[in-house]
Amino acid sequence: MVSLKEVVNDPQGLVVQEALHAVGYPEVGGARVGKFIRLELEGPDQEKAGARVEEMCRRLLCNGVIEDFSFELSPV
Amino acid sequence: MVSLKEVVNDPQGLVVQEALHAVGYPEVGGARVGKFIRLELEGPDQEKAGARVEEMCRRLLCNGVIEDFSFELSPV
Repeated sequence: MVSLKEVVNDPQGLVVQEALHAVGYPEVGGARVGKFIRLELEGPDQEKAGARVEEMCRRLLCNGVIEDFSFELSPV
Repeated sequence: MVSLKEVVNDPQGLVVQEALHAVGYPEVGGARVGKFIRLELEGPDQEKAGARVEEMCRRLLCNGVIEDFSFELSPV
Protein backbone atom coordinates (compact mmCIF):
# COMPACT_ATOMS: atom_id res chain seq x y z
CA MET A 1 0.00 0.00 0.00
CA VAL A 2 1.60 3.24 -1.11
CA SER A 3 -0.17 6.49 -0.26
CA LEU A 4 0.65 10.16 -0.44
CA LYS A 5 1.83 11.68 2.83
CA GLU A 6 -0.87 13.62 4.67
CA VAL A 7 0.88 16.94 4.01
CA VAL A 8 0.92 16.37 0.24
CA ASN A 9 -1.96 17.65 -1.90
CA ASP A 10 -3.97 14.93 -3.60
CA PRO A 11 -5.77 16.38 -6.64
CA GLN A 12 -6.94 12.92 -7.73
CA GLY A 13 -8.59 12.47 -4.33
CA LEU A 14 -10.27 15.86 -4.66
CA VAL A 15 -11.72 14.85 -8.03
CA VAL A 16 -13.08 11.64 -6.49
CA GLN A 17 -14.63 13.63 -3.66
CA GLU A 18 -16.23 16.15 -6.03
CA ALA A 19 -17.52 13.39 -8.29
CA LEU A 20 -19.10 11.59 -5.32
CA HIS A 21 -20.74 14.85 -4.22
CA ALA A 22 -22.04 15.36 -7.75
CA VAL A 23 -23.74 11.98 -7.88
CA GLY A 24 -25.41 12.30 -4.50
CA TYR A 25 -23.01 11.45 -1.69
CA PRO A 26 -22.62 14.68 0.29
CA GLU A 27 -21.41 12.76 3.36
CA VAL A 28 -17.98 12.28 1.79
CA GLY A 29 -15.79 14.71 3.71
CA GLY A 30 -12.49 13.71 2.15
CA ALA A 31 -10.92 11.27 -0.29
CA ARG A 32 -7.31 10.22 -0.85
CA VAL A 33 -6.16 7.93 -3.62
CA GLY A 34 -3.18 5.63 -3.29
CA LYS A 35 -1.68 2.57 -4.89
CA PHE A 36 -2.15 -0.98 -3.85
CA ILE A 37 0.49 -3.44 -5.04
CA ARG A 38 0.15 -7.19 -4.55
CA LEU A 39 3.38 -9.14 -4.90
CA GLU A 40 3.77 -12.89 -5.05
CA LEU A 41 7.04 -13.97 -3.50
CA GLU A 42 8.75 -17.31 -3.75
CA GLY A 43 10.64 -18.62 -0.76
CA PRO A 44 9.85 -20.20 2.57
CA ASP A 45 11.10 -17.60 5.04
CA GLN A 46 8.44 -15.05 6.05
CA GLU A 47 10.74 -12.93 8.21
CA LYS A 48 13.29 -12.58 5.42
CA ALA A 49 10.48 -11.85 2.96
CA GLY A 50 9.30 -8.96 5.15
CA ALA A 51 12.76 -7.40 5.15
CA ARG A 52 13.01 -7.81 1.36
CA VAL A 53 9.59 -6.24 0.77
CA GLU A 54 10.48 -3.31 2.99
CA GLU A 55 13.64 -2.84 0.92
CA MET A 56 11.65 -3.05 -2.35
CA CYS A 57 9.30 -0.37 -1.07
CA ARG A 58 12.12 1.94 -0.05
CA ARG A 59 14.19 1.41 -3.18
CA LEU A 60 11.59 1.24 -5.91
CA LEU A 61 7.90 1.17 -5.10
CA CYS A 62 7.57 4.20 -2.86
CA ASN A 63 8.87 7.73 -3.34
CA GLY A 64 9.86 8.51 0.24
CA VAL A 65 9.77 12.27 -0.33
CA ILE A 66 6.01 12.39 -0.85
CA GLU A 67 4.73 8.89 -0.10
CA ASP A 68 4.35 6.51 2.81
CA PHE A 69 3.99 2.75 2.56
CA SER A 70 2.75 -0.15 4.60
CA PHE A 71 2.56 -3.85 3.85
CA GLU A 72 1.22 -7.14 5.10
CA LEU A 73 2.49 -10.65 4.41
CA SER A 74 0.21 -13.62 4.11
CA PRO A 75 1.33 -17.17 3.29
CA VAL A 76 -0.38 -18.89 0.36
CA MET B 1 -9.56 -1.14 -2.64
CA VAL B 2 -10.15 -1.48 -6.36
CA SER B 3 -8.17 -4.11 -8.24
CA LEU B 4 -8.25 -5.60 -11.71
CA LYS B 5 -10.03 -8.92 -11.95
CA GLU B 6 -7.68 -11.91 -12.04
CA VAL B 7 -8.57 -12.65 -15.67
CA VAL B 8 -7.61 -9.14 -16.82
CA ASN B 9 -4.06 -8.44 -17.98
CA ASP B 10 -2.15 -6.00 -15.80
CA PRO B 11 0.69 -4.43 -17.81
CA GLN B 12 1.50 -2.03 -14.97
CA GLY B 13 1.98 -5.00 -12.65
CA LEU B 14 4.25 -6.67 -15.21
CA VAL B 15 6.41 -3.55 -15.36
CA VAL B 16 6.68 -3.53 -11.56
CA GLN B 17 7.67 -7.20 -11.60
CA GLU B 18 10.30 -6.68 -14.30
CA ALA B 19 11.70 -3.63 -12.53
CA LEU B 20 12.00 -5.57 -9.26
CA HIS B 21 13.79 -8.39 -11.11
CA ALA B 22 16.13 -5.85 -12.68
CA VAL B 23 17.17 -4.37 -9.34
CA GLY B 24 17.82 -7.72 -7.69
CA TYR B 25 14.59 -9.29 -6.44
CA PRO B 26 14.22 -12.48 -8.48
CA GLU B 27 11.85 -13.97 -5.88
CA VAL B 28 8.99 -11.79 -7.14
CA GLY B 29 6.79 -14.24 -9.05
CA GLY B 30 3.98 -11.84 -9.80
CA ALA B 31 2.78 -8.28 -9.23
CA ARG B 32 -0.64 -6.66 -9.62
CA VAL B 33 -1.30 -2.98 -9.18
CA GLY B 34 -4.61 -1.63 -7.94
CA LYS B 35 -6.09 1.50 -6.43
CA PHE B 36 -6.58 2.25 -2.81
CA ILE B 37 -9.14 4.94 -1.98
CA ARG B 38 -9.62 6.27 1.53
CA LEU B 39 -12.89 8.10 2.11
CA GLU B 40 -13.86 10.12 5.14
CA LEU B 41 -17.58 9.87 5.79
CA GLU B 42 -19.69 12.03 8.03
CA GLY B 43 -22.58 10.42 9.89
CA PRO B 44 -23.08 8.20 12.89
CA ASP B 45 -24.52 5.03 11.36
CA GLN B 46 -21.86 2.48 10.38
CA GLU B 47 -24.27 0.00 8.82
CA LYS B 48 -25.81 2.65 6.59
CA ALA B 49 -22.32 3.92 5.73
CA GLY B 50 -21.36 0.43 4.53
CA ALA B 51 -24.34 0.27 2.19
CA ARG B 52 -23.54 3.76 0.85
CA VAL B 53 -19.87 2.91 0.25
CA GLU B 54 -20.85 -0.27 -1.57
CA GLU B 55 -23.13 1.83 -3.78
CA MET B 56 -20.33 4.38 -4.41
CA CYS B 57 -18.03 1.58 -5.49
CA ARG B 58 -20.59 0.07 -7.85
CA ARG B 59 -21.72 3.37 -9.33
CA LEU B 60 -18.50 5.34 -9.59
CA LEU B 61 -15.28 4.03 -8.10
CA CYS B 62 -15.09 0.58 -9.65
CA ASN B 63 -15.56 -0.50 -13.25
CA GLY B 64 -17.41 -3.76 -12.69
CA VAL B 65 -16.50 -5.10 -16.12
CA ILE B 66 -12.79 -5.38 -15.37
CA GLU B 67 -12.41 -4.54 -11.68
CA ASP B 68 -13.33 -5.95 -8.28
CA PHE B 69 -13.56 -3.97 -5.07
CA SER B 70 -13.49 -4.52 -1.34
CA PHE B 71 -13.73 -2.10 1.56
CA GLU B 72 -13.41 -1.80 5.31
CA LEU B 73 -15.03 0.71 7.63
CA SER B 74 -13.32 2.02 10.72
CA PRO B 75 -14.74 4.64 13.09
CA VAL B 76 -12.55 7.68 13.77
